[in-house]
Amino acid sequence: MTVAEKILAAHAGLDEVRPGQLVECDLDLVLANDITAPIAIDVFRELGATEVFDRDRVCLVPDHYAPNKDIKSAEQTKKMRDFAHEQKITHYWEQGCAGIEHALLPETGTVVPGDLVIGADSHTCTYGALGAFTTGVGSTDAGVGLATGRAWFKVPPTIKFEIEGELTDGATAKDIILHIIGLIGVDGALYQAMEFTGSTIASLSMEGRMCISNMAIEAGGKAGIMEVDDVARAWLEGRCQRPPVEYHADPDAEYARVVRIDAADIKPCVSWPHLPSNTHPVSESGHITIDQAVIGSCTNGRIEDMRAAAEVLRGRRVAEGVRCIVIPATQAVFKQCMAEGLADAFIDAGCVFSTPTCGPCLGGYMGILAAGERCVSTTNRNFVGRMGDPTSEVYLASPAVAAASAVAGRICAPSDL
Amino acid sequence: MTVAEKILAAHAGLDEVRPGQLVECDLDLVLANDITAPIAIDVFRELGATEVFDRDRVCLVPDHYAPNKDIKSAEQTKKMRDFAHEQKITHYWEQGCAGIEHALLPETGTVVPGDLVIGADSHTCTYGALGAFTTGVGSTDAGVGLATGRAWFKVPPTIKFEIEGELTDGATAKDIILHIIGLIGVDGALYQAMEFTGSTIASLSMEGRMCISNMAIEAGGKAGIMEVDDVARAWLEGRCQRPPVEYHADPDAEYARVVRIDAADIKPCVSWPHLPSNTHPVSESGHITIDQAVIGSCTNGRIEDMRAAAEVLRGRRVAEGVRCIVIPATQAVFKQCMAEGLADAFIDAGCVFSTPTCGPCLGGYMGILAAGERCVSTTNRNFVGRMGDPTSEVYLASPAVAAASAVAGRICAPSDL
Repeated sequence: MTVAEKILAAHAGLDEVRPGQLVECDLDLVLANDITAPIAIDVFRELGATEVFDRDRVCLVPDHYAPNKDIKSAEQTKKMRDFAHEQKITHYWEQGCAGIEHALLPETGTVVPGDLVIGADSHTCTYGALGAFTTGVGSTDAGVGLATGRAWFKVPPTIKFEIEGELTDGATAKDIILHIIGLIGVDGALYQAMEFTGSTIASLSMEGRMCISNMAIEAGGKAGIMEVDDVARAWLEGRCQRPPVEYHADPDAEYARVVRIDAADIKPCVSWPHLPSNTHPVSESGHITIDQAVIGSCTNGRIEDMRAAAEVLRGRRVAEGVRCIVIPATQAVFKQCMAEGLADAFIDAGCVFSTPTCGPCLGGYMGILAAGERCVSTTNRNFVGRMGDPTSEVYLASPAVAAASAVAGRICAPSDL
Repeated sequence: MTVAEKILAAHAGLDEVRPGQLVECDLDLVLANDITAPIAIDVFRELGATEVFDRDRVCLVPDHYAPNKDIKSAEQTKKMRDFAHEQKITHYWEQGCAGIEHALLPETGTVVPGDLVIGADSHTCTYGALGAFTTGVGSTDAGVGLATGRAWFKVPPTIKFEIEGELTDGATAKDIILHIIGLIGVDGALYQAMEFTGSTIASLSMEGRMCISNMAIEAGGKAGIMEVDDVARAWLEGRCQRPPVEYHADPDAEYARVVRIDAADIKPCVSWPHLPSNTHPVSESGHITIDQAVIGSCTNGRIEDMRAAAEVLRGRRVAEGVRCIVIPATQAVFKQCMAEGLADAFIDAGCVFSTPTCGPCLGGYMGILAAGERCVSTTNRNFVGRMGDPTSEVYLASPAVAAASAVAGRICAPSDL
């Protein structure tokens, strides 16, 4: 079996599962945020439920429109907060203690290797980098999950991505995943598990790995899984709140497809509007001027991302007329940015340095685009109107490329400065 | 003549002016922000103007809904930015370099003693603490000001506030102005200049003085003026971008009224909903639980305010279920908070530490209240629905009281912790 199949089998109480099989599984965690929790709570009530299946297994995170954007979002966070207190939810983080859910859960050891997790947020697949099967669901499924601690799955076929060799020309984890999505398309892994392996993946930090797993959904993937190795074990050491379980693919595991990628073919790249799969090497960008750069999100708001951006911005200035908005993903990352002098470097360069929030990524707030404006962003989606006006444009890139572009006022790589 | 009369006379090219007299004056600065500049720019265009009266005398600050809250605010900041670039405005600050206008202009020495300034924002009176006559106007007047550099004024009578003695029981500058507004009411100084003097004012830092002048408008004051003294001179040293001019009241200056206040009568206080004049001693608050605390704004977002709040919050935790949102007023204050360890203290206590913005003060974003929620806030207005839902409540207080209340979960003074 593949890693995905093993995790599903274990949580279904079965010795073996096969792609296409319908299984009902016990969940390790059910996650929702300030947008999705209110709907999930309604479903929970409609089911007649009065208590969540396990108050230690529910995660509620105010991150999308928190601190409250407006009255509507204030009502949403209030509904979630009231529910968290009523149910004595262990993993509820108040505004000021929180951060972006997909950075917060791994950072705090709330999600651990081997977990089966559903989250009412599409980028729940992030935790695949920890060797877990974690996937985004609708708020209805999350509501049922809150009540029962169970969910049904159709076992997905697995596509294996073998990425071998050394990254060159400043390519990063973000470029790997943008390259892959460019290669297979936004539905290239539809309802399939993506398994990332090879020496290139092995060479990445956990931050880089989470960036890749995070965007599995942008290729349609049900999950984006990596096996636990020594890098993961070192990062997880002392962090896990529950005992981790490692699942490794069998030597005879069956894959729907194996995609082999030479790391040398991966260049720093940018996904042009309006699809993550519209990937182009940065070097072929020509003269695309920008109005805004956003560095942050569940994709690229971790400390390694902040360091990469600060390295480019330190001692430089954001181009006139451009705003550069840096958003560390969690309060811990925010504090680390201060401790390492990254926050000073950002502000000295003329950046906004924001409290953690999903904010502009989903067109929420803290950096919305006017008509015709163009933004380079380390976030995960560049759909029409994603970050503001329907005529605005979002270009997806790595923190280093976004930072360099902010300085140049046009899309470019750090080596172009 | 009073200070107000002297400044108006000098800018009208007259030897003398008297209350009630209509004068046309040359302006030192015309200010607008992301909400008001777009309207002022429209007026400017309607007048057929093509160039601002002096590109060094116009201040444009994106602070109310910046970083952009939504598409509408994105369009507003864009309109102001485009105008600033078109007119080559010297004092335009891009998002990331800006801060709240009324903290930014004094901090950067853009406004100096003796100035006559109109600003399309009601709290433009803040700079009275620098010995300037500065007042809020409508966007139409600001638009005419952009074009002509001139404005008409009806010379206001002056009320003199003599505050003598030492503050006790932890009372602060904020308590002085809340006390005064409680004393004279929200229209107690309607279309009159307020002149603050006495040993208590002399003992205050510039931050404290600006807090007082800032809220002159909440008593209806046209200006809230203090004479320049050694404390002011020391603070201004090396900061002023233009030569300051000191105006002092004549010994025989005529006042509409003199209000004498004994500092010993000023207690740490809170203005209950829904008027700033609804002032009560903190000690008489009883058990008023809160959902949120906001520490920041043009009233109390300066470094002294941050220090006062941090002193209370350091080593403590924000009460469960309460969110505490700390917003330094400018990037310089933000950096100073980091340098002094205040930012760490806030985050360790469980506070949101936000990038500078007016944000929640005006119900903009970054901390909006749901129905029935209660907030203690260092801001300047507690009108119905000011910070969110019409059934929410805002209690105005000093940074120390707001911080203590955040820790206790109910309105109290630091001495109650």
